[in-house]
Amino acid sequence: MSSGLVERLREIVGEEACFSRLEELAVYECDGTTLHGATPAAVVLPNSCDEVCRVVKACREAGVPFVPRGAGTGLSGGALARDGGVVIGCSRMNRILEVNAEDRYAVVEPGVVNLDLSKAVASLGLFYAPDPSSQPVCTIGGNVAENAGGPHCLKHGCTTNYVLALEMVLPDGEVVKLGSPTGFAPGYDLVGAVVGSEGTFGIVTKVWVRLSPLPEQAETLLAIFPDVVSACRTVSGIIEAGLVPVALEIIDQRTIAAVEASVYAAGLPTDAGAVLIIELDGPGCVLPPQIERVRAIAEREGASRLDVARGEAERQRFWKARKGAFGAMGRLAPDLYVCDAVVPRSKLPEVLAKVCAIGDAHGLTLSNVFHAGDGNLHPNISFDRRDADELRRVVAAGEEILRVCVEAGGVISGEHGIGSEKNDFMQLLFDEADLDAMRRLRAVFDPDGVCNPGKVFPSTRASVGSGLEPRDHDSVPFG
Amino acid sequence: MSSGLVERLREIVGEEACFSRLEELAVYECDGTTLHGATPAAVVLPNSCDEVCRVVKACREAGVPFVPRGAGTGLSGGALARDGGVVIGCSRMNRILEVNAEDRYAVVEPGVVNLDLSKAVASLGLFYAPDPSSQPVCTIGGNVAENAGGPHCLKHGCTTNYVLALEMVLPDGEVVKLGSPTGFAPGYDLVGAVVGSEGTFGIVTKVWVRLSPLPEQAETLLAIFPDVVSACRTVSGIIEAGLVPVALEIIDQRTIAAVEASVYAAGLPTDAGAVLIIELDGPGCVLPPQIERVRAIAEREGASRLDVARGEAERQRFWKARKGAFGAMGRLAPDLYVCDAVVPRSKLPEVLAKVCAIGDAHGLTLSNVFHAGDGNLHPNISFDRRDADELRRVVAAGEEILRVCVEAGGVISGEHGIGSEKNDFMQLLFDEADLDAMRRLRAVFDPDGVCNPGKVFPSTRASVGSGLEPRDHDSVPFG
Repeated sequence: MSSGLVERLREIVGEEACFSRLEELAVYECDGTTLHGATPAAVVLPNSCDEVCRVVKACREAGVPFVPRGAGTGLSGGALARDGGVVIGCSRMNRILEVNAEDRYAVVEPGVVNLDLSKAVASLGLFYAPDPSSQPVCTIGGNVAENAGGPHCLKHGCTTNYVLALEMVLPDGEVVKLGSPTGFAPGYDLVGAVVGSEGTFGIVTKVWVRLSPLPEQAETLLAIFPDVVSACRTVSGIIEAGLVPVALEIIDQRTIAAVEASVYAAGLPTDAGAVLIIELDGPGCVLPPQIERVRAIAEREGASRLDVARGEAERQRFWKARKGAFGAMGRLAPDLYVCDAVVPRSKLPEVLAKVCAIGDAHGLTLSNVFHAGDGNLHPNISFDRRDADELRRVVAAGEEILRVCVEAGGVISGEHGIGSEKNDFMQLLFDEADLDAMRRLRAVFDPDGVCNPGKVFPSTRASVGSGLEPRDHDSVPFG
Repeated sequence: MSSGLVERLREIVGEEACFSRLEELAVYECDGTTLHGATPAAVVLPNSCDEVCRVVKACREAGVPFVPRGAGTGLSGGALARDGGVVIGCSRMNRILEVNAEDRYAVVEPGVVNLDLSKAVASLGLFYAPDPSSQPVCTIGGNVAENAGGPHCLKHGCTTNYVLALEMVLPDGEVVKLGSPTGFAPGYDLVGAVVGSEGTFGIVTKVWVRLSPLPEQAETLLAIFPDVVSACRTVSGIIEAGLVPVALEIIDQRTIAAVEASVYAAGLPTDAGAVLIIELDGPGCVLPPQIERVRAIAEREGASRLDVARGEAERQRFWKARKGAFGAMGRLAPDLYVCDAVVPRSKLPEVLAKVCAIGDAHGLTLSNVFHAGDGNLHPNISFDRRDADELRRVVAAGEEILRVCVEAGGVISGEHGIGSEKNDFMQLLFDEADLDAMRRLRAVFDPDGVCNPGKVFPSTRASVGSGLEPRDHDSVPFG
């Protein structure tokens, strides 16, 4: 990249917000993905929409692509500069610009941390519903790019259900405002198209989000099962009974063992086949009968025990096992590959059995924690990427898992996105006509393909089957 | 149109499902819009996706545009063949193909009547949430085209929140399947783009919709206010208190008078300034405290009375005033123009005052019933379209109302769509760059603009200000 562009970027965002030295760029070489990394040519941290426009125009004039980035917690390599170029980080644009309790929305910059918004509006009796597990660190701009879900999206829905309007810098440097704070927008649903487009349509610089009233009360239940099948049947039974819990999370035996051996130990019985966390919320009076309903279903399906958290401390302990699961995996191996796929809820037991068999066949340490209510699986493979053979087996197992899920009527991503990790598996779900429609949709916003290139669409370099190879291995700090 | 095409269409759909004689076409010359009508060249009623494909291909080969049509209850002229061509009616494709209670979705053909789906799944404790006021007759295909809302979308959301996947015949005659019955779909949100695209992207032939558990109980309240401002303040107060009623509907004094003078008389006090219908649903135990909360807010804002319906008969009576409002207008004049716009909820009082003043200034009979919880206004103008001067005043008032709503931070349609009624007002909200983005999005699906032409986008024939003129007056049975 020409030093002229770096000079220009420095003028726009200031010396302290433009990085081009290798040691500075190292921070931006990876995201939550463990299979890839990539070094950008430069990183800028603009502080306003106007600066974003000028950065984009400078990149265009220099013929250099650019990659929007939130907190870098994404799990599909979406915020990596896989094809080089300038990373446009939104971390300094982190202001909550307006909170309107009467019309129940907030206006935020893309760098606002998800949980910070809920904290800021709690005194008004409100919260921001989409809560990815990374919510203490991830940002709303990144959530918009990935259409982030979370444990509570079973009841509340995903990010797309909460975005009312967007301000976005298009890849030609022009600013558009899409949608309406009223939640109604005539014409085509461009906001819906942008949410989940993984940063390939432009750089979002302002987000109008819907706020929700805080529930009066929440109850957290922990049920112990002899096997994962009975836990899954309980989940289906709860849904069939017409209950809508805020969360239905299953932790399998392998994960329980890892958690209990770690600092996240939550006192779970290590001989249990599976644990199910059920969270119910709503007015206080509705919860006791719902708890009894859940208890009856769990017992019918063979639960050996069902505890209701007494107080916040015990509630936190129940969740600790779920939220600490990824951390606990750190004891097992230096790296963790978090798979993400969805199957119809009714297919969970058979698919889980196949997923575990795939892990075993490849001699891998595979465990499962997942949003069972949504049918959203997260098989986790613990590995060491310095072991080239093991890395190959992880890649192979990941692909087989996706195929099993698609065969069961599922899809290849629930909430982590496609990014540059699964783009070569898009053909498992979509034929060329579908992908062409998506390419044309992308061209509506980014006709030249300069905004976050190399994401979402199958690469021209590889065919299905080699997509998880660490293609940029040489340029990354791993291995 | 060539008789060759009609022959071809007859071969595809059968003699009894292809119409081309003027007296047969008359049925398809209008929809719910009172300002326009248009005679199609032919009408076909295909019975399968395959027939739709063949019809579309035949039209393409003949160079004739086509217009998808549901039940024809739309209120923005979306299902009219304004630019001629073949109407493809979906009324015979009215089968419920699958109901999956465990995974809580249904698969329906586009011609299934909205209410019929809820009736079909009621025994399973489920219902289909989006409920436009026309739900006893409108079809799900049309609901998808218009992203239909309804009185209950305050709590439940609109059609777009309930469509999981779609089968659609593209304007080149190819079939695509978009989305996933799991509700998760990697890649861009093409389902979201299609819902609300007003039939300009293709012909939907199958819809996977999310079903919801029936609420345990519902309570309907009717509050009487001295003026519409205090009713609006009550609505804001209810929302601010964190309550989420299923419906918050205001009926103004002018509408009360019309209703009480009609067969829809519901015993409302004709000296009331406004009436507010509040419907709450949920588990039985939550409703009494919510009712008291609502009562306190209504009394604080000056309600003279608040009644809770005792039993289904009284509940129906309360709703009769709302649902019969349009029918009651029939007594006032032969025609009714139902306006549709949205403003921020907090702006309702000032906008309503301006809307009434506009009606008065034009010497028109204007009344209001509206989804107050959503800020979704429906000013209704009673008129006689045979009176050319009155028709001109209606058109002028409609435009002024839209301008007032946009100035208040609102938008030009809440749930009726743009169609061919408001397409020339899109520039009130969108600049050329926005409209160009929408045109390119349309071209993703319909590059040649042959599917439902003349809708959504400003016509080239007219500029803002003449959009509501009955351009096709000569070709229609009105006047």
